Amino acid sequence: MRRRSFVEHAAAIAALPLVDPTGFQNAMRWASPRSPVDPLHVNGDRLNGWLAAFNQIGRTAGGINRVAYTAADFEGRAFTLDLLRQAGLPTRLDAAGNMWARLDGTDASRTPIVIGSHVDSVTDGGNYDGPLGSFAAIEVARTLRERGMRLRHPLDVVVWQNEEGGTIGSKLVIGALTDADLDRVARSGKTIREGIGLVGGDAAKLASVVQRRGDIACYIELHIEQGGLLEKAGKQIGVVQGIVGLRWFEITITGFANHAGATPMDQRQDAMLAAAKFTVAVHDAIRSEAGRQVATVGRLTASPNTTNVIAAQVMLTVDLRDLDQAKIEHFTQVFERLARTIGEATNTTFQFKRLVDSEPALADSRVLDCIQSSANALGLLSQRMPSGAGHDAQEIARIAPMGMIFVPSVGGISHSPKEFTRPADCANGADVLLNAVIAADQA
Amino acid sequence: MRRRSFVEHAAAIAALPLVDPTGFQNAMRWASPRSPVDPLHVNGDRLNGWLAAFNQIGRTAGGINRVAYTAADFEGRAFTLDLLRQAGLPTRLDAAGNMWARLDGTDASRTPIVIGSHVDSVTDGGNYDGPLGSFAAIEVARTLRERGMRLRHPLDVVVWQNEEGGTIGSKLVIGALTDADLDRVARSGKTIREGIGLVGGDAAKLASVVQRRGDIACYIELHIEQGGLLEKAGKQIGVVQGIVGLRWFEITITGFANHAGATPMDQRQDAMLAAAKFTVAVHDAIRSEAGRQVATVGRLTASPNTTNVIAAQVMLTVDLRDLDQAKIEHFTQVFERLARTIGEATNTTFQFKRLVDSEPALADSRVLDCIQSSANALGLLSQRMPSGAGHDAQEIARIAPMGMIFVPSVGGISHSPKEFTRPADCANGADVLLNAVIAADQA
Repeated sequence: MRRRSFVEHAAAIAALPLVDPTGFQNAMRWASPRSPVDPLHVNGDRLNGWLAAFNQIGRTAGGINRVAYTAADFEGRAFTLDLLRQAGLPTRLDAAGNMWARLDGTDASRTPIVIGSHVDSVTDGGNYDGPLGSFAAIEVARTLRERGMRLRHPLDVVVWQNEEGGTIGSKLVIGALTDADLDRVARSGKTIREGIGLVGGDAAKLASVVQRRGDIACYIELHIEQGGLLEKAGKQIGVVQGIVGLRWFEITITGFANHAGATPMDQRQDAMLAAAKFTVAVHDAIRSEAGRQVATVGRLTASPNTTNVIAAQVMLTVDLRDLDQAKIEHFTQVFERLARTIGEATNTTFQFKRLVDSEPALADSRVLDCIQSSANALGLLSQRMPSGAGHDAQEIARIAPMGMIFVPSVGGISHSPKEFTRPADCANGADVLLNAVIAADQA
Repeated sequence: MRRRSFVEHAAAIAALPLVDPTGFQNAMRWASPRSPVDPLHVNGDRLNGWLAAFNQIGRTAGGINRVAYTAADFEGRAFTLDLLRQAGLPTRLDAAGNMWARLDGTDASRTPIVIGSHVDSVTDGGNYDGPLGSFAAIEVARTLRERGMRLRHPLDVVVWQNEEGGTIGSKLVIGALTDADLDRVARSGKTIREGIGLVGGDAAKLASVVQRRGDIACYIELHIEQGGLLEKAGKQIGVVQGIVGLRWFEITITGFANHAGATPMDQRQDAMLAAAKFTVAVHDAIRSEAGRQVATVGRLTASPNTTNVIAAQVMLTVDLRDLDQAKIEHFTQVFERLARTIGEATNTTFQFKRLVDSEPALADSRVLDCIQSSANALGLLSQRMPSGAGHDAQEIARIAPMGMIFVPSVGGISHSPKEFTRPADCANGADVLLNAVIAADQA
């Protein structure tokens, strides 16, 4: 049987009659939200049930594979659209392929509070990175609806397309991609432009999706931590101070190939040794200063890469991140200085190329306060922390007040089939999102 | 036109009438060799002419490619057989595919002095590694023949097959390969067994080629240095003290893959960092002790080898060499200790596997004296030195007194299209070989 395309799926879902609001418990008893000192709770079991069902989609021997613009991504998006419809929320696909659903507010003059995340995955990834935040946003809207509570602001649930391929859906909404960017090939093998069409968008109408400063009241995203800070600290909630800036260097070290047996140690131009010294020096420099900055040499290829030949050339990458752009600039200079020193000591040359450069995106202090007070009201242990990973929230932060909520990843593991967040933590995160939205609505 | 196989080439050459010894200048005036204080000279121009002509065979854009058991190797061997025939020496192929030619001595009871090298090359190599020693041996025998000089010992010129693939021809002659070894695939894609047939040998009759202690009076091989010691020291001749022992380690370092942004520096199990620390530590340990020991990390592959993921696993190789087996054992222990310390410090594990283990092969002091006195008599500047590279001489050293002569490599470069030894140095090396043979004959 032919697998239905996402567009066919979406059309079929759109053709269904909207769930009758009166079908929901308390749906007609519109109530005012309570104060955060008396917090509300989502239906955590329902949320975790959705996550469990979603864990079958794109599941392979290697892990979850819902890479954007593949059949499993389409299936994941269709599942998500169904959840939105079941929540009684009318859905809308924008021209970028992002999925939206709105719970109207009482004050038509107000801009929306936006909550959401994504449902695509990396290759051989897990089931929590993205789906938790997306489904929790749906659950929050559904809880409000079921309880008959009306916010002053409209509440928009958004599920961004292709987050893992470079926060594409959110970048399109802030107008950050050029026409040339659309021709870049994504992991699926399709270009972004092709992908937009495949997920139901229209690349010719992207101007229609662009939002500007003032269009969004605030944006709040729940996500798994993808690191081990919360677990190690025994905390349940991370109140995210911002998303770190990131700079990627590709560094080519050139020495000279020679015989590993016949070339005395003092006559070598060993690119592998230079690369090793540099890798250690980068690590030592990063750790020698206080702060949460991180740097990683994750990729290295040597040439000719032969046991008995001194390496002529090594290419390695450095991934540098911090919440403070000044620190990124500082360490860039440190790395360049280390390269010069090591190059001279090893008789090799270092050439730096910047692959990616993304500035830190700080959380808005008022949104951060809403999240903090929500966690406090729920009696959850929390701590402030940066997000070391990138998220759609970093894009929306360019045009709107942004905040993020983290919940613990067991073992700090993410982008792995071992990625796991306990059901209680998933429910806690959704509860914090719910009460933060209510607090933001009243702020 | 179909390229003739080496076997066809060899058959055609064998069918030619042997060059009449009387055709050579002075051929009938058999003379006694003069003493080394009044040294002889080869025809250096002729030798360098052969090298220049040979430089066209297997030449590609990447360098010389006469990899054993390929068409270019067959062509190189046919060229070499022609030189032996032109020298008036009857040739013989042994069952291993080695080419031999004998200049009879005056004393039929004596075992032969053997001189020679190889004519196969590495991939993208140069024209001097092997051919110089092979052609110089032919030139030495031809010079003796043309001058009508008869040694007491027979003089055997040998051109070993497949040196670069692991000194195969010489290993077969000392009986060092098992039947299983013959099924190993060489760089050409053929097995050793297939290769033996292709170069005119007979894998079923290998027992016939095995020589034992006492069968060879001594073995002397001229070779380019393949390092920069002689050039740096301003010396013309290297008197080789022996061929270093070699131990190859394949070391697998296991950490844990995690997010490069979200994992704090103190919570990492970074296999790349551990590999870098180990590479630096190996280098520092080797240099911290006096001596000529060398160690090289030439090959490294990381997994998943992704810019934003902490490396889960790194495989690297260490090539360790010294003339003293005790030092090889000592540094093996040093490396294992360093691995334990670094493994503990980085929360990674190191696993060692030995790929190759070859003991040092020391030159015979009497042969070494013959080479030294020859260089002295010729007025050439010389120095004692180890060979860091492997040679067929290391195999023959297991059954016979061995010595090697080195001449400078410009820039210390070898196994490269840039490999170059000046014509005057090629002639010097052949002169030293000639007078060393005469000295050895009289010893």
